[in-house]
Amino acid sequence: MAVVLPFESPQSASIERLAGLVAFDLERVNATILARTGSEVTMIPEVANHLISSGGKRLRPMLTLAMAKLAGYAGDGHIKFAAAVEFMHTATLLHDDVVDESDMRRGKLAARMLWGNEASVLVGDFLLGQAFKMMVEVGNLQALGILSCAAAVIAEGEVMQLGAAKNTATNEDEYLAVIRAKTAELFAAACEVGPALAAKDKAEQAACRSFGMNLGIAFQLVDDALDYGGKSAKLGKNVGDDFREGKITLPVVLSFRRGSAKEREFWNRTLGKGDIGDGDLDTAISMMTRHHAIEDTIGRARHYGAIALDALALVPPSEIKQALEETVAFCIARAH
Amino acid sequence: MAVVLPFESPQSASIERLAGLVAFDLERVNATILARTGSEVTMIPEVANHLISSGGKRLRPMLTLAMAKLAGYAGDGHIKFAAAVEFMHTATLLHDDVVDESDMRRGKLAARMLWGNEASVLVGDFLLGQAFKMMVEVGNLQALGILSCAAAVIAEGEVMQLGAAKNTATNEDEYLAVIRAKTAELFAAACEVGPALAAKDKAEQAACRSFGMNLGIAFQLVDDALDYGGKSAKLGKNVGDDFREGKITLPVVLSFRRGSAKEREFWNRTLGKGDIGDGDLDTAISMMTRHHAIEDTIGRARHYGAIALDALALVPPSEIKQALEETVAFCIARAH
Repeated sequence: MAVVLPFESPQSASIERLAGLVAFDLERVNATILARTGSEVTMIPEVANHLISSGGKRLRPMLTLAMAKLAGYAGDGHIKFAAAVEFMHTATLLHDDVVDESDMRRGKLAARMLWGNEASVLVGDFLLGQAFKMMVEVGNLQALGILSCAAAVIAEGEVMQLGAAKNTATNEDEYLAVIRAKTAELFAAACEVGPALAAKDKAEQAACRSFGMNLGIAFQLVDDALDYGGKSAKLGKNVGDDFREGKITLPVVLSFRRGSAKEREFWNRTLGKGDIGDGDLDTAISMMTRHHAIEDTIGRARHYGAIALDALALVPPSEIKQALEETVAFCIARAH
Repeated sequence: MAVVLPFESPQSASIERLAGLVAFDLERVNATILARTGSEVTMIPEVANHLISSGGKRLRPMLTLAMAKLAGYAGDGHIKFAAAVEFMHTATLLHDDVVDESDMRRGKLAARMLWGNEASVLVGDFLLGQAFKMMVEVGNLQALGILSCAAAVIAEGEVMQLGAAKNTATNEDEYLAVIRAKTAELFAAACEVGPALAAKDKAEQAACRSFGMNLGIAFQLVDDALDYGGKSAKLGKNVGDDFREGKITLPVVLSFRRGSAKEREFWNRTLGKGDIGDGDLDTAISMMTRHHAIEDTIGRARHYGAIALDALALVPPSEIKQALEETVAFCIARAH
């Protein structure tokens, strides 16, 4: 009895405009990605392209390209930085699948199921190395600093999540600290490098960073909601993956806190101890529905989306600004 | 019936001189390492320090410090670079243990046995991120380029090794390509950053790089030999680890090629198929002894050690040069 939410979204909640504006640059990013996953060690392009070519939206590199455009950047360092952002993201996914023991990713078998955990760990490391190599080639130390900081913060967030795993008593602030680090930081960094490359002032960089950070939080919250109410085919993952993996996400945090003692026992057994039986996912979803946990998670996402929009408020109107605003709406509308 | 080789080495084959010359700088490196493994996420310093404080020789960062001294570098960027080299090395060890499913590391339980594979993967990623962050702080793009290149090459070498795993037909050239990438490249990069920071000319950088590359190859060859003839307590690993993990190292490559059809059957069964029984390790070692595979592996190490020494031949005599030469002798003398 999964709550199936329709995915159709109004015209204003689309990434079509963004995709159109950065299409030319994104072609160059894709060519760079292809060139930089090349290796005589054939397993590397195989594993890397399995994931990179599997229909990810390229949302993060598109943000890097869009912010470079917004900042009026005239060079071409943003191409390599956008490719590096996608590599860092892909490396994280490869390592996440190993950590989470996931079977599926974007509707396909996870790389680790096809090539083994070893290859996922090592090809992830290779992509991280290539990402840094490309960024060093561009030679902008400030932009480099932004993404190397992000790499450390992201890994820190993942370890934090590991510590919080199975802990049903995790509160909303603790949960937010995890997703800020593990998801939103890369969005923030992806958005910040554009103005950094264009040597814009601190305030403008901070605005772009804030946009990315809050968009990233909203994005992750919607993802967490969809895991209890989306369609597998459109999501590329199965409803209930987070549940089966014992992940404590906001819908769980809210349901646990709002539930009865008996309900908390249910969460402790299923997510705390990993003792999950037939029908438990349905029970989980019905409890979430009763406590409005999924809709409130989306409500929280809307809150961060609004902050993202305000972060760009001082930027004069332009088509690229409008495209970025529509991207916020798109990320949230995925939940409707 | 392991061939136990005595570890005592003559005075001229020691890293004492090197350790003495860089002692002051190494203290600063250790303080940096301690500061940079700090995190509010307590699992990070726990896992990182389990390995970093477990009695590694700090050979790689010492090389970075020594080469900076040899180049007459007057700044202090070499401290952060040396710490970054150690972080990259530690990250590789953490990921290797997961890939190889090792139980022990440096005579202690591997981190993954205490905190799980997840923590080993993620703390490795954190250390890589911190390494890049530190290097970006120093701000020397050439030195940064050297180590970011190395990061990609190392991962590529690890994947190459994965592809060669269990393949008893691996030849010596293929084996060398793997250890050049997975081990020697970091030695080479660690040695090259010193002259790069000091803005020395290409020829001097290339000489230091060549010293490191060949020392690294010799180091790995001796390690591979010791795995079939060392003492567990002094090695910090067990004799026969490589055998049990099905690793194709040079002693195996030589024994396979020099052996009879029946012996090749033995290698195919044990390392190719992983079907290892009681007494097989002893049989392996007696075959290696018969074919002089261990002593010839050490002979090959001596060859690369000689190239390392010649690489520095144009450098005028100095105590630091002498210390580096003694380090080569030390790495090889471990096998005697």
